[in-house]
Amino acid sequence: MSKREMKIKSIERVGNSVRLIDQTKLPKELVYRTLDDYREIVGAIKRLEIRGAPAIGIAAAYTLAIAVQQVRDGSPTTVKRLADEIKAARPTAVNLFWAIDRATGTVISEEVWDYRAVADRLWDEAERIHDEDRQMCARIGQFGADLIQDGNGILTHCNTGALATGGIGTALGVIYTCRDQGKRLRVYADETRPLLQGARLTAWELQQEGIDVTLICDNMAAVLMRQGKVNHVIVGADRIARNGDTANKIGTYGLAVLANHHGIPFYVAAPTSTFDEATATGRQIVIEERGAEEITNGFGKRTAPEGIRVYSPAFDVTPHELISCYITDSGIRPGGRQEAQ
Amino acid sequence: MSKREMKIKSIERVGNSVRLIDQTKLPKELVYRTLDDYREIVGAIKRLEIRGAPAIGIAAAYTLAIAVQQVRDGSPTTVKRLADEIKAARPTAVNLFWAIDRATGTVISEEVWDYRAVADRLWDEAERIHDEDRQMCARIGQFGADLIQDGNGILTHCNTGALATGGIGTALGVIYTCRDQGKRLRVYADETRPLLQGARLTAWELQQEGIDVTLICDNMAAVLMRQGKVNHVIVGADRIARNGDTANKIGTYGLAVLANHHGIPFYVAAPTSTFDEATATGRQIVIEERGAEEITNGFGKRTAPEGIRVYSPAFDVTPHELISCYITDSGIRPGGRQEAQ
Repeated sequence: MSKREMKIKSIERVGNSVRLIDQTKLPKELVYRTLDDYREIVGAIKRLEIRGAPAIGIAAAYTLAIAVQQVRDGSPTTVKRLADEIKAARPTAVNLFWAIDRATGTVISEEVWDYRAVADRLWDEAERIHDEDRQMCARIGQFGADLIQDGNGILTHCNTGALATGGIGTALGVIYTCRDQGKRLRVYADETRPLLQGARLTAWELQQEGIDVTLICDNMAAVLMRQGKVNHVIVGADRIARNGDTANKIGTYGLAVLANHHGIPFYVAAPTSTFDEATATGRQIVIEERGAEEITNGFGKRTAPEGIRVYSPAFDVTPHELISCYITDSGIRPGGRQEAQ
Repeated sequence: MSKREMKIKSIERVGNSVRLIDQTKLPKELVYRTLDDYREIVGAIKRLEIRGAPAIGIAAAYTLAIAVQQVRDGSPTTVKRLADEIKAARPTAVNLFWAIDRATGTVISEEVWDYRAVADRLWDEAERIHDEDRQMCARIGQFGADLIQDGNGILTHCNTGALATGGIGTALGVIYTCRDQGKRLRVYADETRPLLQGARLTAWELQQEGIDVTLICDNMAAVLMRQGKVNHVIVGADRIARNGDTANKIGTYGLAVLANHHGIPFYVAAPTSTFDEATATGRQIVIEERGAEEITNGFGKRTAPEGIRVYSPAFDVTPHELISCYITDSGIRPGGRQEAQ
C-alpha cells in the first residue's frame, strides 16, 4: 500500500504565512494565495475562498497566530479581541469557534505576554489542529476503504474532500485511500444544486488527483443505481444526532431513500466530533433555509421568473434507519438500516 | 365549475398567420411572434422557440398551410417538398412527423391542385389537430382532477402545461382543471436539471395563471415528501410501453421511487397516443444521452472543470410497479403499484 502525496492542499503553513487555494476561482483557475495579513485571511474566509468546516477551523487557528505576530501584542485583551474578530468571519461555523477557543486557551491563562512567545504557541497549536485533522481524515479513509472492493462504483454528494479539510477529506478520503491501495474505482459526483459544490469542487479535485470521475445532475443518481453502476453511496455529515439521524447537504436524504430501494449500502463518513450527544434525534435539528437567489440566479443568469416563491433548505436529515454504517476516525459504527437477506 | 380562459397560449392561428410565444425568452420576457413566413416558423421550431411534443405537431401543421399559401403551389410534389422541409426542423420529433403526415394525407391524393383550396384544407386540418389536442388536454384534466382534493400539495417535474401543448397541458392540465373547480392547491415545481424547464417554463406558466407555485431544486423533493407537503406527484410521459413502463424526463424515475417510499400516489398524465403498443417493456426503450455542455455550462458560465466526463441521460424509464395510475384522455388506467393497506 503506497500512500501518495496529495496534489491538492486547501491550506498550508508556509513560513509565517498561510497558503490557500482560492476556491471561488475553481474550477476555472487554480489560484494559490499566500497571506501574512490576518485581515486578508478573515476576508478570504468571509468570501468562501476557503470553505468546508474542518478547513475553516484550521485556517482560523493559523489566522490567530498571524494576527498576534502582526500586531506585536500578546496580551490577553488583544488576543481576545483578535479571536473575536476572526470568529466574526463566519458566525455560524462551529469548527471556527472551536478552533479559535482551543488556540486561545493555550495562551490566554499564561503569564507570557511577549508577543513572539504567544505567536509561537499559537502556531504550534494551529499546526496540531491541522495535523489532527489530517490524521482523522487518514483514519476515516482506512476504515472506509475496507468496505470497498476493486472495480466498485461509488456515488458521492457535495464536497467532502481535500478542499474541505486539512487532509484527504472524509467521504472522498475513503476514495483516495482506495486509490492508494491500488483499487480502481468509478466515482460519480452529484453536481449538488443549488451551489454546485459537486461540479465545481469535487469533480475538479478528483480529476486533479487522477480518479476516474463522472459528473451527473442530482436527478440522475436514481437511474445510475438502477443500471447497477453504483455499489456504494458515501456522503459526509454536518451533524449526527444521538440516535444516528444525520444532517447533511440537501439531497442526501433522497439519495439514502434511493440507495435503500436499490439495496445499495449507504455510508456516512464523518469524524467522531460530528456526533452531537446533546441532540437526541434528527427532529431537533432545525433546517436552515437559504435565499431564493441561489436557485433563481445561480450562475450569473436569471433562470426563473421574477417574484417566484422558492423553498431552499440548506440541508436535510437522513434518519438512521436509512444509514448502513458510519465511517468514523475511531472505526465503523453500525447504522440502523435493516438489510434484506 | 367555471372554466377560465387560459392566459397562456403557446400557439394560435391569427388570420393566415400563427402567433407563438418565443419560449427561449422566458422567463425574462414574454415575447409573442406573429409569423406568416414558413421558413421563419421552421427556424423557430429549430431554435426551440416553440417546444413540447404536441405544440410542435400543431405548429408544424399550421406551417404547412402557410407554406403552400406562401409559395402559391398546391401540387403534390410541392406539398411533399414543403412537408419534408418542415419535418427536418426536429428530426426526432415524432409528433411533428405525425402531424405533417396527417395534414399531407388530406390533400396529397386529391385532384385539387389549386393552391388556395389546398391551403384551406391544410388550415382546416391544422385547426382540427389543434382542437383535438385542446380537447385531449381538457379530458386529461377532468379525469385527473377527480383524484385531487381541495388543499392538496402537488409535485410536478419538467414542463407539461400550456407551453408544451395546444391546450391546458397534461400534468399541469390537471392542476388548471382543479383551479377551475375551485380547489386550492399548493404546487411544487422541480427546476428539472439540466435544462431547467421547471424553473424557466413551469414556474413561469403557473405563476402567470395565478397558481400557488413554489420552485425547488430536484434534490429537495425528498425532504418535501418527508415533511408531508406532497399529496400527489403528477408527471407527463414521452412514451409508455405496453406493460406500462414509462419513459419521461430524467429525474422522473427517482421521484417515483421517493413517492413509493413515502406512500404518495404517483400519476403519469398522458394522451392515449403516448401508449406505444409496439414496445413491450421499458427495457426496449433506448435512453438518449445529451451533450456534456448542458451540465457543465448550463447557466451561461462554466461550472465544472474542463475535460470532465459527464453522464447525461435525457430521460429515464419508470417501471410500472412504481406508477399508481395513468391519467389519459380516455380515463384512468390502473398502474402496477401495490399500495400498502
